[in-house]
Amino acid sequence: MTIIMRKFAFQGAVGAFSHSAGRLFASRLGNAKHAVFQPCRSFDEVFERVVSGASAFGIIPLENSSIGSIAANFDLLWSKEIALVGEVSMAIHHQLIGLPDSDLAKLTDVYSHPAALDQCRKFFDRSPHLRPVAFFDTSGAALFVKEKNDPTSAAIASDIAARENGLTILEWDIEDYKENRTRFGIIANLDFNPDSPREIPDPPYKISCVAELPHQPGSLATLLQRLASLNINLTKIESRPIPEAAWHYRFFVDMELDTPAKDAHVVRILKTSCESYKILGRYSPWSDTVAGAGEPAGQRPIV
Amino acid sequence: MTIIMRKFAFQGAVGAFSHSAGRLFASRLGNAKHAVFQPCRSFDEVFERVVSGASAFGIIPLENSSIGSIAANFDLLWSKEIALVGEVSMAIHHQLIGLPDSDLAKLTDVYSHPAALDQCRKFFDRSPHLRPVAFFDTSGAALFVKEKNDPTSAAIASDIAARENGLTILEWDIEDYKENRTRFGIIANLDFNPDSPREIPDPPYKISCVAELPHQPGSLATLLQRLASLNINLTKIESRPIPEAAWHYRFFVDMELDTPAKDAHVVRILKTSCESYKILGRYSPWSDTVAGAGEPAGQRPIV
Repeated sequence: MTIIMRKFAFQGAVGAFSHSAGRLFASRLGNAKHAVFQPCRSFDEVFERVVSGASAFGIIPLENSSIGSIAANFDLLWSKEIALVGEVSMAIHHQLIGLPDSDLAKLTDVYSHPAALDQCRKFFDRSPHLRPVAFFDTSGAALFVKEKNDPTSAAIASDIAARENGLTILEWDIEDYKENRTRFGIIANLDFNPDSPREIPDPPYKISCVAELPHQPGSLATLLQRLASLNINLTKIESRPIPEAAWHYRFFVDMELDTPAKDAHVVRILKTSCESYKILGRYSPWSDTVAGAGEPAGQRPIV
Repeated sequence: MTIIMRKFAFQGAVGAFSHSAGRLFASRLGNAKHAVFQPCRSFDEVFERVVSGASAFGIIPLENSSIGSIAANFDLLWSKEIALVGEVSMAIHHQLIGLPDSDLAKLTDVYSHPAALDQCRKFFDRSPHLRPVAFFDTSGAALFVKEKNDPTSAAIASDIAARENGLTILEWDIEDYKENRTRFGIIANLDFNPDSPREIPDPPYKISCVAELPHQPGSLATLLQRLASLNINLTKIESRPIPEAAWHYRFFVDMELDTPAKDAHVVRILKTSCESYKILGRYSPWSDTVAGAGEPAGQRPIV
C-alpha cells in the first residue's frame, strides 16, 4: 500500500492561523496524518511552491470579517496559473503572548503580522504605551519573543502558538470583534480547463471568478441580472483597482451554485458579458462551525 | 473683514500624505492661507473632532490603487454622523528616508504606517535584512528616525517629510507600482438631510452610499439595473463584511451623476431597493492630475 504524503504550503511559522486552516482542510480530505506542512516566508512563496509543484496545496487567507479582503492574495489569484480548490472559514481569536514573568504594564513592543495588528486596533488604542511591530507571521512573532527572552516584548498570535512556544497568555481574545473570522482559500496546481472542468464538486459549490467589464453604464448590472435569472447567490463582489493602472478596475465575484446544471450557463454568461474573465476555481465551502448546533455549513449569501 | 480660519483634522504628523491631500483641498476651496491643520493620532480621533465640531473638516484615506480599500474608514463613515463633502485623488510616492551618514546596507529597522509598508512589499522582498516596523504615521516615522539619530533606522514617507525633518532620501520611489495613487475623502459635520439636501454640487458629482439589501438572489442586480437605467456610472462597489456579524454584508457604492435631475431618482431607488441605506455624501471628485495635459478630471467609471 502506498501512502501519499500531501504537501501543504502556508505563509508563516508552525502554529500560524493558515497552518490551522490547512489542518482542518487536510482532516476533511481524510489524510490529516499524511499531510506535511511547509512554512513559507511570503504569500508569493506559497504561490510559487504550488505553481512549481513543490507543494500539492497552498493555504492563503482571502478575507477577514473585521478588516476585509487580503488584497495581495486576490492579485496573486488573478496573475498565477493555479486553481482555488477549497475554502475554510475559521474563527480567529488573538492572544497577547509573552514570557511567564511579564505583564501588560512591563511591555513596550508587541510583534505580529500586520493583519493581526489591524484586527486588534482597540487594544492598542487603550494601551498607548505599546508599540505595534510588524512581523512576517503571528506564530513566528511568538517564537521571536521566546528567543528574545525579554519581558518588555510580546506577540499577538493564537493560543496554539503560545502553547507550542511555552509562553504565557497575558491577555485573552484581544481582537476588536468577538465574531472575528477569516476565510482561507486552498490553491492547487491543477492541469484543468476552468471553462469546462473534468470534475465538479458536489453541490452546493462555489465558483470564484475575476471579470473585466466593458466601460459602459449597466455592464455590471447586466452581468448580475443574468446570473440572478439562474437563481444564483452571490457571496462576494468587489471592484479592485488594477495595481499597474490606477483607477482601472476588475471585479472579484464569488457565487454559489445549487446544481451543476447551471455551470455551463455561468461560463456562457461570463464569456458573453465580460471583456475578459478568469474562473479561479470551483470548490465546496467549508466552515469550522459545521459541527455546531444549527450553524449554517456555508457562507450566508450576500444577496 | 473677518477671516475664517478653517480647521482640518488629519491622521498623522505634519508632512503626512493626508496633510498634503488636505492642502490640495484647501487651495481648491480658495482658503489655503487660512487653513489650520490638526494632526491626530488615529482615524477615530479625526472623526471625533469633526463630529464634535472641533474641526470643520477631516481628511481620510479611502482607497489606494495598490492595496485596496482602507476598511477602517469605511466602517467609520457608516457609523458616524458626518458627510463626505469632497474627494482628492493624489499620486503617492514613497521614499526611504534616513540620516545623512546612513545607507541601505547599514539599516536594520524601517518605520512607517502599515499601509505604506504594504505598498512597498517588493522593496522588503529584495532587502530581507530589513525589519518593517509599524508606526502610527509615515511623517511621524521620519521625525522618530531623526530624533533616534541612529543610522540603522530609516522611515518610509514622502519627500516633503524628508525635507521637513532635514533627512536624506536613501532610495527614491520604493512603492511597488509607479502608478500608486490614494483617494482621500473630506468629511464634515453638516446639519443636512442626506435624502433631500439643500445644496447639490455642480455636475458631474459623486454620491457615495452604503446599502443593506434583502437576502435574495438578484437584489443587487435589481438595484444596479435600476441605476443603470438612469445612465449612471458606478465608480466603486464593494461587499464589506459587517464586523459585528461575521459574513453578513453591506455594500459601499459610489456613483457619478452628470445632472442633478437624477438625484431624487437615485434616492427613490435606494429607498425602494434596500432594506436600509445611508447616503454618505455628495461631492465633486478632484484629482491632482487636473492640471496635467489630457488627464481626466474625475475617476474613470468602473462600468
